[in-house]
Amino acid sequence: MDGVAETKVKAPHDRLAEWLAEDMAAVNALIRARMASKHAPRIPEVTAHLVEAGGKRLRPMLTLAAARLLGYQGSDHQKLAATVEFIHTATLLHDDVVDESQRRRGRPTANLLWDNKSSVLVGDYLFARSFQLMVETGSLRVLDILANASATIAEGEVLQLTAAQDLATDEAIYLQVVRGKTAALFSAATESGAVISGAMDSQVKALYDYGDALGIAFQIVDDILDYGGQDAVIGKNIGDDFRERKLTLPVIKAVAKADAEERAFWIRTIEKGDQREGDLEQAMAILARHGAIAAARDEALAWAERARQAMSSLPDHPLRQMLDDLAGYVVARVL
Amino acid sequence: MDGVAETKVKAPHDRLAEWLAEDMAAVNALIRARMASKHAPRIPEVTAHLVEAGGKRLRPMLTLAAARLLGYQGSDHQKLAATVEFIHTATLLHDDVVDESQRRRGRPTANLLWDNKSSVLVGDYLFARSFQLMVETGSLRVLDILANASATIAEGEVLQLTAAQDLATDEAIYLQVVRGKTAALFSAATESGAVISGAMDSQVKALYDYGDALGIAFQIVDDILDYGGQDAVIGKNIGDDFRERKLTLPVIKAVAKADAEERAFWIRTIEKGDQREGDLEQAMAILARHGAIAAARDEALAWAERARQAMSSLPDHPLRQMLDDLAGYVVARVL
Repeated sequence: MDGVAETKVKAPHDRLAEWLAEDMAAVNALIRARMASKHAPRIPEVTAHLVEAGGKRLRPMLTLAAARLLGYQGSDHQKLAATVEFIHTATLLHDDVVDESQRRRGRPTANLLWDNKSSVLVGDYLFARSFQLMVETGSLRVLDILANASATIAEGEVLQLTAAQDLATDEAIYLQVVRGKTAALFSAATESGAVISGAMDSQVKALYDYGDALGIAFQIVDDILDYGGQDAVIGKNIGDDFRERKLTLPVIKAVAKADAEERAFWIRTIEKGDQREGDLEQAMAILARHGAIAAARDEALAWAERARQAMSSLPDHPLRQMLDDLAGYVVARVL
Repeated sequence: MDGVAETKVKAPHDRLAEWLAEDMAAVNALIRARMASKHAPRIPEVTAHLVEAGGKRLRPMLTLAAARLLGYQGSDHQKLAATVEFIHTATLLHDDVVDESQRRRGRPTANLLWDNKSSVLVGDYLFARSFQLMVETGSLRVLDILANASATIAEGEVLQLTAAQDLATDEAIYLQVVRGKTAALFSAATESGAVISGAMDSQVKALYDYGDALGIAFQIVDDILDYGGQDAVIGKNIGDDFRERKLTLPVIKAVAKADAEERAFWIRTIEKGDQREGDLEQAMAILARHGAIAAARDEALAWAERARQAMSSLPDHPLRQMLDDLAGYVVARVL
């Protein structure tokens, strides 16, 4: 096999995983060690189900990449990477309870396999463990970043809960929800990696901006795919957001252009939750009619471009190129 | 009214509240300010329902008392006290989801008034806010204490989940559960108050031991009252633990002495969950037959005595006397 050609076609996150292989092995060992519980074996059972289901470990890789890109030589970035993955896993466990989800990463959810109680309490445990890990780094600035990110995440989730089913939800509220549910952890991942490396403020800011924009692009793409991705590829069901009556960007754009008949459709299906056979197909047809998917895709592309721009001030480095490519790759899923 | 006589009959937590009135006013202002959310009004609604339902604020008072008793003159102990109350409120919200509770502090629970989703996510928000507050103190030692307490709390909750319905649960497991569900936050409250005051290690240890023993005594009393307290007084229903098939100290003691017929009763009601009319009364009769309530009460008294002993090395101070009296008061509920 031609090694050079092979490298060229590899996805950016696979190239990141290769470059950061030693770091990631240490992070995975840390995750396994810290998700253990001497007294409550239910904890590693539930956590392992989710952690070992083959997520891409994108968030911890962002932390590692940010630190290494800025020349960090220590090992505290591994603790931060494990922290970020624990926070992510904790929010997934709680999300699945809130959304009453049945599948995650192509497998039945923990709330389905065990119960809601286990998902709530094991999520709490992982959050506490992440907190212990970050305290070990001894960096109050990192603790501040992660505490603020945790608050933004939880606030965004509550906002999503109350904004769902409400056709008055506009793009500004959507952006706040997206920052909470996705971008806050992406930007905390890159920013904390930069801070632990002792980088200049301008570099810390660049990596914060990169993570923020990447996270927003990532979530908009996810919301687009929910109206058209392939079940097997994205590991979740198409139409989940519609069934959960979430006001995501494509729908918000279509609602803004709705005629009387379409508005009645959205009121019935999203606000009143009276959904019937064929409604999802009807929703998709309305989205297509107004170019709502294309418009949402354009916004995702613009955020990906902002992510790349943020990196432009950073030193030239193979990891910078990979992060750059990652921004393009994230939105390529909807091109 | 005779002021002196009045003082004498006042409960210790009321005397603490009087002595610490200025501090508590600042803590309450902090709690109100930090439970706000610009974007998600659901958050203060849910939090206020619980926070303003008239809990005794015992945990934050413990932090304030520990710091003041050791001569602390700053205001960071107020942030820690608010932190402790937020962690407590967050765990109550999640507990009520896990236990499917209907009443808390004499009012309908948040999960009943809103929904489980709101309770899970607002709990997460309060936990994140507590984390921000403690970071503001800038004390890594305090962060370490509270991170460890958070992990112990969550681990204890999961352990309780798996230990419930299992007649093999013994007193050692019960003690671990109790440390998690109650004593870990009591001891973190007193220990962090001591640490922030810059106390000697021996004094920090004394206040940790006091909080730990007080918390254990408090929880054993609570578990006893669940088989005999008055609904109106304790603000919760008698028999909750029995219905939720929890192995608490009185039941563990009775199971250890059960004859074949009694063992069959516990297997049916606790392990299998097949509960019928009159079973709670039957359970209470069995507890009485084996002196299980009296034996549990003796353990609560011993823990209260340990709490008082822990304080004996501390300087003489009105707050020390109140904490001393509090240990006696906590167990007086079952005398």
